[in-house]
Amino acid sequence: MELIYLNTIWVVLAAAMVLLMEGGFSLLEAGFVRTKNAVNVTMKIFVDLTIGALTFWVIGFGLMFGKDAFGIIGTSLIGTPEKIALPFELPSTAFVLFQMGFAVACISIISGAVAERMNFKAYIITAVLICIIIYPLSGHWIWNSDGWLAKLGMKDFAGSAVIHAVGGFAALAMAKILGPRKGRFNSDGSVNVFAPSNIPLASAGAFILWFGWFAFNAGSTLDASNGSLGSIAINTMLAGASGGATALILTMKKFGKADPSMTINGILAGLVAITAGCAFVSQWSAILIGISSGFIVIYATLFVDFIRVDDPVGAVAVHGFNGLFGTIAVGLFDTSQGLFTTGDISLLKIQLLGAVVVIVWGIIGGAFMAKVCEMTVGLRAKERDEDEGLDMAYHGIPAYNELERFTDLPTSFYNFEETTGISIAPIKKEKASSI
Amino acid sequence: MELIYLNTIWVVLAAAMVLLMEGGFSLLEAGFVRTKNAVNVTMKIFVDLTIGALTFWVIGFGLMFGKDAFGIIGTSLIGTPEKIALPFELPSTAFVLFQMGFAVACISIISGAVAERMNFKAYIITAVLICIIIYPLSGHWIWNSDGWLAKLGMKDFAGSAVIHAVGGFAALAMAKILGPRKGRFNSDGSVNVFAPSNIPLASAGAFILWFGWFAFNAGSTLDASNGSLGSIAINTMLAGASGGATALILTMKKFGKADPSMTINGILAGLVAITAGCAFVSQWSAILIGISSGFIVIYATLFVDFIRVDDPVGAVAVHGFNGLFGTIAVGLFDTSQGLFTTGDISLLKIQLLGAVVVIVWGIIGGAFMAKVCEMTVGLRAKERDEDEGLDMAYHGIPAYNELERFTDLPTSFYNFEETTGISIAPIKKEKASSI
Amino acid sequence: MELIYLNTIWVVLAAAMVLLMEGGFSLLEAGFVRTKNAVNVTMKIFVDLTIGALTFWVIGFGLMFGKDAFGIIGTSLIGTPEKIALPFELPSTAFVLFQMGFAVACISIISGAVAERMNFKAYIITAVLICIIIYPLSGHWIWNSDGWLAKLGMKDFAGSAVIHAVGGFAALAMAKILGPRKGRFNSDGSVNVFAPSNIPLASAGAFILWFGWFAFNAGSTLDASNGSLGSIAINTMLAGASGGATALILTMKKFGKADPSMTINGILAGLVAITAGCAFVSQWSAILIGISSGFIVIYATLFVDFIRVDDPVGAVAVHGFNGLFGTIAVGLFDTSQGLFTTGDISLLKIQLLGAVVVIVWGIIGGAFMAKVCEMTVGLRAKERDEDEGLDMAYHGIPAYNELERFTDLPTSFYNFEETTGISIAPIKKEKASSI
Repeated sequence: MELIYLNTIWVVLAAAMVLLMEGGFSLLEAGFVRTKNAVNVTMKIFVDLTIGALTFWVIGFGLMFGKDAFGIIGTSLIGTPEKIALPFELPSTAFVLFQMGFAVACISIISGAVAERMNFKAYIITAVLICIIIYPLSGHWIWNSDGWLAKLGMKDFAGSAVIHAVGGFAALAMAKILGPRKGRFNSDGSVNVFAPSNIPLASAGAFILWFGWFAFNAGSTLDASNGSLGSIAINTMLAGASGGATALILTMKKFGKADPSMTINGILAGLVAITAGCAFVSQWSAILIGISSGFIVIYATLFVDFIRVDDPVGAVAVHGFNGLFGTIAVGLFDTSQGLFTTGDISLLKIQLLGAVVVIVWGIIGGAFMAKVCEMTVGLRAKERDEDEGLDMAYHGIPAYNELERFTDLPTSFYNFEETTGISIAPIKKEKASSI
Repeated sequence: MELIYLNTIWVVLAAAMVLLMEGGFSLLEAGFVRTKNAVNVTMKIFVDLTIGALTFWVIGFGLMFGKDAFGIIGTSLIGTPEKIALPFELPSTAFVLFQMGFAVACISIISGAVAERMNFKAYIITAVLICIIIYPLSGHWIWNSDGWLAKLGMKDFAGSAVIHAVGGFAALAMAKILGPRKGRFNSDGSVNVFAPSNIPLASAGAFILWFGWFAFNAGSTLDASNGSLGSIAINTMLAGASGGATALILTMKKFGKADPSMTINGILAGLVAITAGCAFVSQWSAILIGISSGFIVIYATLFVDFIRVDDPVGAVAVHGFNGLFGTIAVGLFDTSQGLFTTGDISLLKIQLLGAVVVIVWGIIGGAFMAKVCEMTVGLRAKERDEDEGLDMAYHGIPAYNELERFTDLPTSFYNFEETTGISIAPIKKEKASSI
Repeated sequence: MELIYLNTIWVVLAAAMVLLMEGGFSLLEAGFVRTKNAVNVTMKIFVDLTIGALTFWVIGFGLMFGKDAFGIIGTSLIGTPEKIALPFELPSTAFVLFQMGFAVACISIISGAVAERMNFKAYIITAVLICIIIYPLSGHWIWNSDGWLAKLGMKDFAGSAVIHAVGGFAALAMAKILGPRKGRFNSDGSVNVFAPSNIPLASAGAFILWFGWFAFNAGSTLDASNGSLGSIAINTMLAGASGGATALILTMKKFGKADPSMTINGILAGLVAITAGCAFVSQWSAILIGISSGFIVIYATLFVDFIRVDDPVGAVAVHGFNGLFGTIAVGLFDTSQGLFTTGDISLLKIQLLGAVVVIVWGIIGGAFMAKVCEMTVGLRAKERDEDEGLDMAYHGIPAYNELERFTDLPTSFYNFEETTGISIAPIKKEKASSI
């Protein structure tokens, strides 16, 4: 039997699991934001998976994986990603599908940080821009074998830098420019925390994300004969568990309450931090990285508040700072080149350079996208829409309707006459009764 | 290593994912219907997965895949589906399991269209009938190599016709005979739209369905050495994304609101439409098919309203009309036989014939099942039960109980004395306090 | 191609699916308990997946699979589980990861039975104890090839005894010592049933559990070349479907209502019962086992009430009694050694011995853990905390916050100054407004 058959199965299944992580993002965010914006965060994830995925397929993939120019950008495969010639035994279609999952994840990181106050049309523009230019460019530098950082020897196995740090710092820049949700920071500089609206929903998202992460990291082998595959999977487990345990215990110790949001973000922080090094570090190193990430996510969350950036779901702390930490951690814990394991500092220097590059690039990219939105459709939701909630403003429907009632907005949509010009009996538009 | 080992793993995993799609149907429907019927739609999916799956295993499988008689019906394997001799390297058990997932999906398509007003016992009868006769018969014609449509050369790779169109048009017939939900159509002929009760729940269902669809389509290879496997997977992704993007943008353009229900149904429409052709068309064709399905699902939804059929979740538009479209699209886009790709119209004619057959068969099947129910247990829920909601009427419990309270119905169930005849202290039946 | 490559993929994917079952447990329990304790049950599952998984990895794995001493206990691999030498073609890391999923499942079985009134710190201690000693010891006896029950020839393919019965009877002992929830049993000895709080959430958990169970059972082959793999998967399906169908029909017959909780527990009962024998019995036997489990789960639930044990989710009936039944059923239905299939009673005797051992060990283990908790942090939640709900008491946040409001507890957590000692503007602590 040919290895390519097994690799095809492996990567297709892994891609499906990575794409399912979008469901994880959606539920996590819908659970963390206020009820009045839960539909809107969900719809943003659907934008990622539809418009985002398609634009990456058409344009972004070629810029990332196409024939290199100057170590900076790909210049082929536009509109024909399946024509890529892979140097290993895998159909190009499976590879492209897997990469689509990664590009979509990068957008979804941003979606959380800008939740509850961003113009929906601006979000669509952002999703397109990140998929066709921001993510593919830095991805090219690190993951295209001819990219300038790849040539320096930077190691980022499954994307702590390429996906999480870039997404996280772009999110930081956009959230800063967008400004905080109304009522988040008081005039005296103090902070209000909005209670998450649905903890079981958010936890469902976390479980799905963890499930998908096994595919995110182990799937990045793209090759079932990779001898590290088992190690990658168990490192992923150990780091996630360590990050979650640390955050859970810390919140209990310090405040007497085991905080669900922080425990979830601790798990995700561990998963983000191990993503770069999962194939390169030992299991005890994975645990150390996970424990560190549990601390980092908490202090990074405080730091984000401190610089007056409003990040409703903690995406910057989870993906930005832990993506950064994970990138650097490779330089510390890599079994063959790490500072702590071998005393050699050369890889660490390269990882630090890469970390600086993705911070700068993420912030530039985020600021660029915010400016494009400001200059076109407007970046921020109208104040009245933010007050009312983006669900009604942009989607005409609240997340939960426990009372029986009619809706007037979808009704207008289902107006056959208006839509087709064919005359039928009028559709009655009853006002939605208030809850 | 033998190919059969890999095929076993592949098909078992794919079957598990297809069966998980039942969870997707359940959450999608529970989110789309009114709260008072959310338990009932969930219980119907459990009927599909338990009673439906078992009856298909005992009887339906043999009628579908057993030794052919006259190109019409299978006549062996009743009670012994694992005795099937497969012409490819796969244990029969894995094949049977995968086919059980397909049969169960066909019932679940119907469950949505008849939601909120059908007698629960009638639904059980319907699930049994579709699994033992309706689905296996047309399935035999198309998927048994000796079936009469198969012999004509009809192509339906993963079941746009066999599963979706048959299910969708049976749903149309049953929903028509069942009549609309009370209050759906006004006496002046106008339409009321009931607001979906839980959008995050429905979206969770959509993500799970999309995840399972990779297995639904790519798993239909039943063979990991099939060179199209990667193409099938990415075509599935591209069509789903295109269908969703189209519906999302259309609703924004026309009504200023990006509608979540229609976006979800656009995604599902794209997935349904690519199901027949996923192994036969190019990636750009998959995108075209997806975009078309985004339009079709919207106009079909309007059309279903127009003919005064009440389909609470849009199952007829999604599965029926897009299953039909997907079947025909093979005749247009097939890389080796399609009209648009080769100029040859012969395959299209066969696909059109097949499409007509599944419409007619679906409608006949639906009407037959409705009549059987009417003549036995009664097709429609009692008006009082419909008013109160089917959850309390059939299951004795509402979907959501945020207040602490006792329930009297399960209590009676847990009466050890009454159930076993052994005397113990009496179980107190407290009335449920009202919310 | 080497078989080990396929086995690695198979076991890593199966492990990920088994670990996803924790999400299933979490949603199932959050849906079954009262709203005021839904966060707490979720957090307990996070304890299992983080602290539980890590302690099993460090200590429990070695006691279970390490070098045998006296058939009783393993004595190596502490802190280095990956050093295990496997007698089949699989990387040790994949094996360890899969076993972590099993250990975590064993804890989560207990979590449901002690829901709504256990001290959270006591639960953490319980999770640690079960993972480092209770589960590994009996696991060693049955699954380590040198364990004393394994040497007698006891058969437990995927853990009806090792995981479910041990967990279920430990749960019974703990729930008994813990005492019932306030208001559960009246002074006259009668029983009150608390209504589940969220049926769609519980059903989502059930679907995820069923999905994971295919990996739980078929993954236990640990070898893709195992010729029974397809049979195992379809037996899993048939038993789950039969258990669910039986419970559904029984509740309809007896009380006129198809009860969702009991249908879900019937499905799970069938899955638990087939777990020991899935690789050893025919498909019709799997159906018989499933049907039996549908009866058993109902009468066991009544019996648990009868002995005045309060098990909010039915874990003892599902996992304890059906784990027991499944263990015994191997002695009845095993195709080569079963009493019903061959007339030979010798295997049945061994299975009965094993069943008695796991009951006794589970009860001893549960009592031991309860006593340790009582002597340290206290086993039971404070009465005031139980009244208020454990969510606010232990986690400072309710499950659902449909109204926009601030929370004071996480706010205190996010106090940068207090946490870091760096002075910034004060964080305002607004009291949570009441719903």
